[in-house]
Amino acid sequence: MSGSSFGKIFQITTWGESHGPAIGVTIDGCPAGISLSEEDIQAFLDRRQPGQSKFTTQRKESDQVEILSGTFEGKTTGTPISLLVRNMDQRSRDYGNIAEVFRPGHADYTYTRKYGFRDYRGGGRSSGRETIGRVAAGAVASLILKRLDIRVMAFAKSIGPVTVDESDYHFDEISQNRLFMPNNALAQKAEEYLTQMMAEKDSSGGIIECIVSGMPVGIGEPVFDKLDAVLGQALFSVGAVKGVEFGNGMSAAASNGSTNNDSFYVENGQVQKMTNHAGGILGGMSDGSDIVLRAAFKPTPSIAQTQQTVNVHGENTELVIHGRHDPIIVPRAVVVVESMVAVTLVDMLFQNMSNRMDKICEFYKTK
Amino acid sequence: MSGSSFGKIFQITTWGESHGPAIGVTIDGCPAGISLSEEDIQAFLDRRQPGQSKFTTQRKESDQVEILSGTFEGKTTGTPISLLVRNMDQRSRDYGNIAEVFRPGHADYTYTRKYGFRDYRGGGRSSGRETIGRVAAGAVASLILKRLDIRVMAFAKSIGPVTVDESDYHFDEISQNRLFMPNNALAQKAEEYLTQMMAEKDSSGGIIECIVSGMPVGIGEPVFDKLDAVLGQALFSVGAVKGVEFGNGMSAAASNGSTNNDSFYVENGQVQKMTNHAGGILGGMSDGSDIVLRAAFKPTPSIAQTQQTVNVHGENTELVIHGRHDPIIVPRAVVVVESMVAVTLVDMLFQNMSNRMDKICEFYKTK
Amino acid sequence: MSGSSFGKIFQITTWGESHGPAIGVTIDGCPAGISLSEEDIQAFLDRRQPGQSKFTTQRKESDQVEILSGTFEGKTTGTPISLLVRNMDQRSRDYGNIAEVFRPGHADYTYTRKYGFRDYRGGGRSSGRETIGRVAAGAVASLILKRLDIRVMAFAKSIGPVTVDESDYHFDEISQNRLFMPNNALAQKAEEYLTQMMAEKDSSGGIIECIVSGMPVGIGEPVFDKLDAVLGQALFSVGAVKGVEFGNGMSAAASNGSTNNDSFYVENGQVQKMTNHAGGILGGMSDGSDIVLRAAFKPTPSIAQTQQTVNVHGENTELVIHGRHDPIIVPRAVVVVESMVAVTLVDMLFQNMSNRMDKICEFYKTK
Amino acid sequence: MSGSSFGKIFQITTWGESHGPAIGVTIDGCPAGISLSEEDIQAFLDRRQPGQSKFTTQRKESDQVEILSGTFEGKTTGTPISLLVRNMDQRSRDYGNIAEVFRPGHADYTYTRKYGFRDYRGGGRSSGRETIGRVAAGAVASLILKRLDIRVMAFAKSIGPVTVDESDYHFDEISQNRLFMPNNALAQKAEEYLTQMMAEKDSSGGIIECIVSGMPVGIGEPVFDKLDAVLGQALFSVGAVKGVEFGNGMSAAASNGSTNNDSFYVENGQVQKMTNHAGGILGGMSDGSDIVLRAAFKPTPSIAQTQQTVNVHGENTELVIHGRHDPIIVPRAVVVVESMVAVTLVDMLFQNMSNRMDKICEFYKTK
Repeated sequence: MSGSSFGKIFQITTWGESHGPAIGVTIDGCPAGISLSEEDIQAFLDRRQPGQSKFTTQRKESDQVEILSGTFEGKTTGTPISLLVRNMDQRSRDYGNIAEVFRPGHADYTYTRKYGFRDYRGGGRSSGRETIGRVAAGAVASLILKRLDIRVMAFAKSIGPVTVDESDYHFDEISQNRLFMPNNALAQKAEEYLTQMMAEKDSSGGIIECIVSGMPVGIGEPVFDKLDAVLGQALFSVGAVKGVEFGNGMSAAASNGSTNNDSFYVENGQVQKMTNHAGGILGGMSDGSDIVLRAAFKPTPSIAQTQQTVNVHGENTELVIHGRHDPIIVPRAVVVVESMVAVTLVDMLFQNMSNRMDKICEFYKTK
Repeated sequence: MSGSSFGKIFQITTWGESHGPAIGVTIDGCPAGISLSEEDIQAFLDRRQPGQSKFTTQRKESDQVEILSGTFEGKTTGTPISLLVRNMDQRSRDYGNIAEVFRPGHADYTYTRKYGFRDYRGGGRSSGRETIGRVAAGAVASLILKRLDIRVMAFAKSIGPVTVDESDYHFDEISQNRLFMPNNALAQKAEEYLTQMMAEKDSSGGIIECIVSGMPVGIGEPVFDKLDAVLGQALFSVGAVKGVEFGNGMSAAASNGSTNNDSFYVENGQVQKMTNHAGGILGGMSDGSDIVLRAAFKPTPSIAQTQQTVNVHGENTELVIHGRHDPIIVPRAVVVVESMVAVTLVDMLFQNMSNRMDKICEFYKTK
Repeated sequence: MSGSSFGKIFQITTWGESHGPAIGVTIDGCPAGISLSEEDIQAFLDRRQPGQSKFTTQRKESDQVEILSGTFEGKTTGTPISLLVRNMDQRSRDYGNIAEVFRPGHADYTYTRKYGFRDYRGGGRSSGRETIGRVAAGAVASLILKRLDIRVMAFAKSIGPVTVDESDYHFDEISQNRLFMPNNALAQKAEEYLTQMMAEKDSSGGIIECIVSGMPVGIGEPVFDKLDAVLGQALFSVGAVKGVEFGNGMSAAASNGSTNNDSFYVENGQVQKMTNHAGGILGGMSDGSDIVLRAAFKPTPSIAQTQQTVNVHGENTELVIHGRHDPIIVPRAVVVVESMVAVTLVDMLFQNMSNRMDKICEFYKTK
Repeated sequence: MSGSSFGKIFQITTWGESHGPAIGVTIDGCPAGISLSEEDIQAFLDRRQPGQSKFTTQRKESDQVEILSGTFEGKTTGTPISLLVRNMDQRSRDYGNIAEVFRPGHADYTYTRKYGFRDYRGGGRSSGRETIGRVAAGAVASLILKRLDIRVMAFAKSIGPVTVDESDYHFDEISQNRLFMPNNALAQKAEEYLTQMMAEKDSSGGIIECIVSGMPVGIGEPVFDKLDAVLGQALFSVGAVKGVEFGNGMSAAASNGSTNNDSFYVENGQVQKMTNHAGGILGGMSDGSDIVLRAAFKPTPSIAQTQQTVNVHGENTELVIHGRHDPIIVPRAVVVVESMVAVTLVDMLFQNMSNRMDKICEFYKTK
């Protein structure tokens, strides 16, 4: 079965392995008439680039995107946009024990069992590099959201035990620290924690939060394609995500109706909510408040400690993973979360356009 | 846009409002040759039936299912199975303030804004009764899983502040208490808590856990249709779910690679994991361990306390919701979670069948 | 695999066998705010009803439709519309040789081989009664097209050797003869031909033409979802259709560019074509001219003559089909073709709505 | 809306314009374990290459394919296969009148109206070069069919008025003449006809027939995804196709049941048909006989004669198309038809795998 496509109207299809010739994405269903350049996409790709800090790998990955189709004279034409990034690190080298051993916490074992064998070079399709296509598509989706006055902002809420409470959010600081946390002081503490983890040959998990403002009311389709359901799929499709929540999330389970319900009120003719425990979604549709969601990332599974595991011959063995690996996935995944949210919102905004007969008549200029 | 269909090969389409003539589901892509009777489906529907305890509404809903198509001489034929449940409570009555007021925590406001107006009788399509179609489909999916030796078991892990720890699980007790908790003693405490909530005209949230055993390795499709991603959509599509997690879930964010990684080992020729922090899914595919997932449900939004809100004329107003409402959604949602998981697993098992050329040749008896 | 759903945004899912309890359709993605009553749908169903002439079966089929969901106070709500028609003729009777024998020209053999067995009562899912769901959905689609000033008109162009040439079209006569031909005199000749066929225990094929006027320009999506491609699927999905063509159709193969090209010209500011060999579609999109298409129907395979065939035990045998069967499929299929075209056009009109960024901004009232 | 993807399980997504940087296709859902090299694909692409005869353009298009993903050590891995062909002819040149004028018979007008503007260089996305992606995917599909002992063979049945009757088919001659006709003598006559057309600055249409042998019985899904319905969409999605038919096709409309029905008989334990008027499909499923289909192609719309048309400013004007254009589309489209049929068959074969519970249990080795 397929599985590499996402979206019904604004549909992205990603392809590529970490050590194959290239990685890319095709965006089908992008409207005509959007100004789009390689720089627009490159800006997004650069945010997931390594080498930004000592907590991201120093491997030189100059991910240069090329637009292969779908634009003419600097504008989208309505035809599919094909985006390509060549892999630099394709040279044949010794993958040694990795080729024959199932790394704990990785997809080596499941890929091998599903397909009969696997591309063992750097994780193949399950590599973090697979997200390049998602981020490139996210850049295009973001241009559409911008035209609709919708803003998507993701950041690192937690790094291991260091969490930024909502009362300590300083959104202007997100871009001022290398972990993309909305608080420079706590980012400093998180850096210290990560330094310690590296010294211990260990890694850390973390939480990314994403806030969407400016969404029109009523986006999301009832029942199976609820806005939170499709966002849920989008986020869980990112490798390493183990939990997703909206608004009060998991903690809503321990709350009461009297406190969890968000009262409505009218101000200046606008219906608003006094609180936003719902995270901006009611009955699977945007309610006009900010959409607030969080994704929990597990710690990087590649650690330098000796691990017990099994090889492809079905024998118990020990594994030491060489090379440098990020002690945390979160900083580089911030733009991935933002991209998946953007891609989802665009698709749901487009799906919403045929929901009312009066608006369809207006669109086609009949009565 | 649609949104009432779920699944690619084993595809269910639900329809119906709480106070319309009927509610139902069409299951397309169900294989031929499965013994199926109305009793099989009724058994599932009865599990979500009210009137089982004082914490579920006493309204008389005798949800009798009728099979309208897709079977012949007691067996599925491979053609779509249409299942129908007539609504008993359709009589026109006074919906009073409900018709004109947006209930906090409900979808009244978003439906009205999306569609221009809404069916205000009992929540319409956003009613809990919409899950009847899901549960009926879940009954059929469960018959398929049974043939494949796969077991799905859901239960109430938490009711408000009362949580059953893994060490206290007694699965045989799940069916022995009215809250479907795997611990009768804690169920007793939870009942006391709910009684108190009712006295306070309040409601409670809770957590449902679901454990799948017997899954073959390698089910789930890479990238966007990862097993956890599709399950995530399935669970978030259930009204009132605000958080979903797999294995260690949200808490993985605060853990380290050295403790979160599950080591592999071989025993009797079988690859196994020493722990199951991953919740049975690696790289988006089943890894042979139990699949463990949890969904957090918000408290019932319909409470008897006076609430601040807005009416359809855009005026601030107060609302008192009359009638009896469950103080908690969780007990009746246990079978809904089980059904959505079953439906998803069947679809992903079918999607997996064309993944290897050697197995396709075996299927079609060529070399 | 599924196969009982059609359409991406305006999506219909049909279900039901000829001799099961009922037959129906679920329409998902129908916009809110359309006035819809059971009478609207009944009017369409009555057009495919037998008993209208001696060339359609006299079996009493009073196909009464019931709306089970998706409307409130006479208007569509945007939620799925479930439509149900009970089968009257379900009594257990002796299907005799039919149960054990593969009827030539029918799907008995292929169903049996695909699914291992089959519902042998009256063709099961492959019965002409399957089209009831399509026609019910077509009635709803037609209401949408009416609001958009688009008209779909189908008629019998040929009955066996009797063909109405374009120069002899009198559209007002279509509803004046029992064969739905646009020429009463030729319909008379066709009736004589059919009477002869019946006397010879034989049957006849025919051609249905459909003309769509009022389509906006640019409907249809490039490449695989071209308007003619999706219409092609829609028409070939109707049992008994063996050929489909647009505009000059098959005869375009023998023509030349100089005569087959339609020249453009401007009149009153409107771009028009001097001829319409293309049948209203250029590059897979509507070009503003009438869409003209034809579907060729094979003769009714159930004939009263003795036929050579094979039984389920793999033995050669003879078959005589008893009971009364229409000597021609075409008259009852006219409304089926019209319905499938209407359903397809609505879906493609909705798909078209997100094709231009400027129009999307206009829809969402941003710049 | 999208429209650039085809197939549900074996899904292809094409992209690219004739004068953009490149053209390509992503194949998702291709099984693991198939030997695949660039040579396999190149062999197919070379069959649609110009420069093979005086009836195909002499422009130098060396379409070299590159495999960017989805293979490892010469075998498919089960992950998406991305195939890329660079366009050679991208240099900016003077498109002169073409840029401002709507060419009759082309998609210039409809693209412009749909999207607000168009890529006027060589037809953009509506160019014949768009089929490169289809053919590359067809090469992969053909490798799968080969493993299943299924053979797909397409050829030119008619060139203008020159038609090869079934009794004159010599399949070994197809590759011996430049028009891919199954009869060298008639191909010679057709060449003479085309030479005359070129002298008259005119073009010709033609018919491609495709025969599939070795199909298992029962492939195709009832109702909307009938084998002929999906093949119908596949063929009409090829630019210039105006008619499609199966078996006796359009002529079935003038025939009788007694002659059109194919009688079954048993020979050596195999159920067979005495005739094949149905073209190998009954009830939308393969019946074990050869699948026989035909597609009628209109004449090349680009002719050197002066044509009446309209420009983008809405003014009447005359157009003379310069440059060399094929006087007929058919020879280069033979491999396109073969490819679209192959891609469709693979998808339907995969869809069929979950149709029987006993076979599913066999696949997963349960009872």
